[in-house]
Amino acid sequence: MKRIKLNKIIKKIFFKHGLSNNHASICASALINAELVGAPTHGLSRLKMYCDRIKKKVINPKPKIKIKKISSSITQIDANNSIGFVAADIGIKQAIINAKKTGLGLVGIKNSGHYGLSGYYAEQAVKKNLIVFCFTNAPPAIAPHGARKSLFGTNPICFGTPTSSKVPFILDTSVSMINRGKIRVAAKIGKKIPKGVALDKNGQPTIDAKKALDGVQLPIAGFRGSGLAWMVDILSGVITGGNHGGKVKDPFDDFTGPQNVGHLFFVMKTNLFINDYRKRIKENILRVKNLPKLKGVKDILYPGESKYLRHKSNNNKKIKISTIVENDIKKLLI
Amino acid sequence: MKRIKLNKIIKKIFFKHGLSNNHASICASALINAELVGAPTHGLSRLKMYCDRIKKKVINPKPKIKIKKISSSITQIDANNSIGFVAADIGIKQAIINAKKTGLGLVGIKNSGHYGLSGYYAEQAVKKNLIVFCFTNAPPAIAPHGARKSLFGTNPICFGTPTSSKVPFILDTSVSMINRGKIRVAAKIGKKIPKGVALDKNGQPTIDAKKALDGVQLPIAGFRGSGLAWMVDILSGVITGGNHGGKVKDPFDDFTGPQNVGHLFFVMKTNLFINDYRKRIKENILRVKNLPKLKGVKDILYPGESKYLRHKSNNNKKIKISTIVENDIKKLLI
Repeated sequence: MKRIKLNKIIKKIFFKHGLSNNHASICASALINAELVGAPTHGLSRLKMYCDRIKKKVINPKPKIKIKKISSSITQIDANNSIGFVAADIGIKQAIINAKKTGLGLVGIKNSGHYGLSGYYAEQAVKKNLIVFCFTNAPPAIAPHGARKSLFGTNPICFGTPTSSKVPFILDTSVSMINRGKIRVAAKIGKKIPKGVALDKNGQPTIDAKKALDGVQLPIAGFRGSGLAWMVDILSGVITGGNHGGKVKDPFDDFTGPQNVGHLFFVMKTNLFINDYRKRIKENILRVKNLPKLKGVKDILYPGESKYLRHKSNNNKKIKISTIVENDIKKLLI
Repeated sequence: MKRIKLNKIIKKIFFKHGLSNNHASICASALINAELVGAPTHGLSRLKMYCDRIKKKVINPKPKIKIKKISSSITQIDANNSIGFVAADIGIKQAIINAKKTGLGLVGIKNSGHYGLSGYYAEQAVKKNLIVFCFTNAPPAIAPHGARKSLFGTNPICFGTPTSSKVPFILDTSVSMINRGKIRVAAKIGKKIPKGVALDKNGQPTIDAKKALDGVQLPIAGFRGSGLAWMVDILSGVITGGNHGGKVKDPFDDFTGPQNVGHLFFVMKTNLFINDYRKRIKENILRVKNLPKLKGVKDILYPGESKYLRHKSNNNKKIKISTIVENDIKKLLI
């Protein structure tokens, strides 16, 4: 389906589910963006879930979002159980305003929900020539190092910076060995998952996607990745007033209440300490790109580069929709 | 040797090499701390290297350190090629002052050198009830994903937060599969290194420590770790005015000029968004600790816990000194 047409349909669905015109528009753009950058696990496959959560009253379609100024640099947002996209959109825009004013912008958000891809918000700050960190937590998926039960979410670390070109440097990496969405897909189509990325519910290594979903995902690099996931949980949940310590509910399976996901956005100017940031980052990237490459490697890409290229190449193409999503859309439009 | 006696000797050595009484004291404490927490690769084994760099005039023993206030929250430090310990000590103390005043403290440092363990500075902020990030870059050790030549340093990510107990949560993890110091030690004593942590100079996997030193270390988790190392290089070097993109010189091997390492410290109050941080972090840690454990795991430790326990247990014991270090000390005292 054409991007613009699909966007209109998704917006209509959110509007039908009680969101304001503006909020519906924010949500549609975020979901379509995930499809364009090649992250369908964070795209339309989640549309039905969001609508289900609205119907079951665990997402508030008409939130009264409270924005509290703590200082010229710091803002707190209570999202009143809004859909995550809306809270994050308001949050990153506020962080950008603060950073433009004082050099630093810090925004803590509580009572929000899953907001999709961190990189989508980071990109907004980078486009305004700012450096940015985005942190958010997620429902239990990763076992802390030494545990046989999951507690941390896949808790992404997201860092973005302007470059000297139009292509932003955006690192948006979960700290799990494998994306939970990929395990879901493998389970659906009966595919195996790689070795060493998950344990079954008894704490034994497994390559069976269904058993992995019942069991736990492993963090990258043992205690290092476990520590990074823990750090993100503290930054997103403990500091902000959001849920933490494994209390964020699974948006697909648990409708007993709102998620209360927390987000933390930290934004800063590039020229706080030097005047020639564009020149410096250009040199930095060139020095890496010009290194001798391993056999079979054509180009050393920086984080975000391939996503940007995918987005560019997909932007004028029709968006492929699976039969499942097509059926979801049909039902949700009724 | 007794800790207090050893501290006096190390201080005397730095003083003899031209450092002020105060700066010599800062350096001695930092090196001894590394021994106490069980990180001897960052301790006395480096004493001779620091002194050699002073003698060869690539560390300035009498630096004129410039401290420039950018805003109430932001400070820039030009360390004038001081020994890293001194620049970092001034930097973290300034970041703490700024954060206590405005909620946020950001300090960028350039023209510094290797500062030892990030966790040592993080601990200072945590002891003042603050949350902290410390970033620093290092000489080339890790190959960017896809490259067969090293460029990024082992570039640690360090995050600290107060807990409800005296034991701080301090994650201080390099993003390499293995600590470069450990490869150095293995090479010295002729021990093999684990599989999958390094390539030789031809880009082939190796378990030979010497070949690994001539070759490259691998980042944790492929492109994820490579991206994290790249992020740390940008934060420490590109933003601050420090060296970056592989230009930080190896302190052991390269005496052609100062290192110009960059550091970035970011500190914030715990109560910006909530009032009950101690209670929240206590609950967070307890929830993780109470999880069912994998076979053979007695206790799930949070980052920094075992270092703290080692420090506590070592604090009243004599510090073991290798023959090499003993000889270094004897020569440096002459």
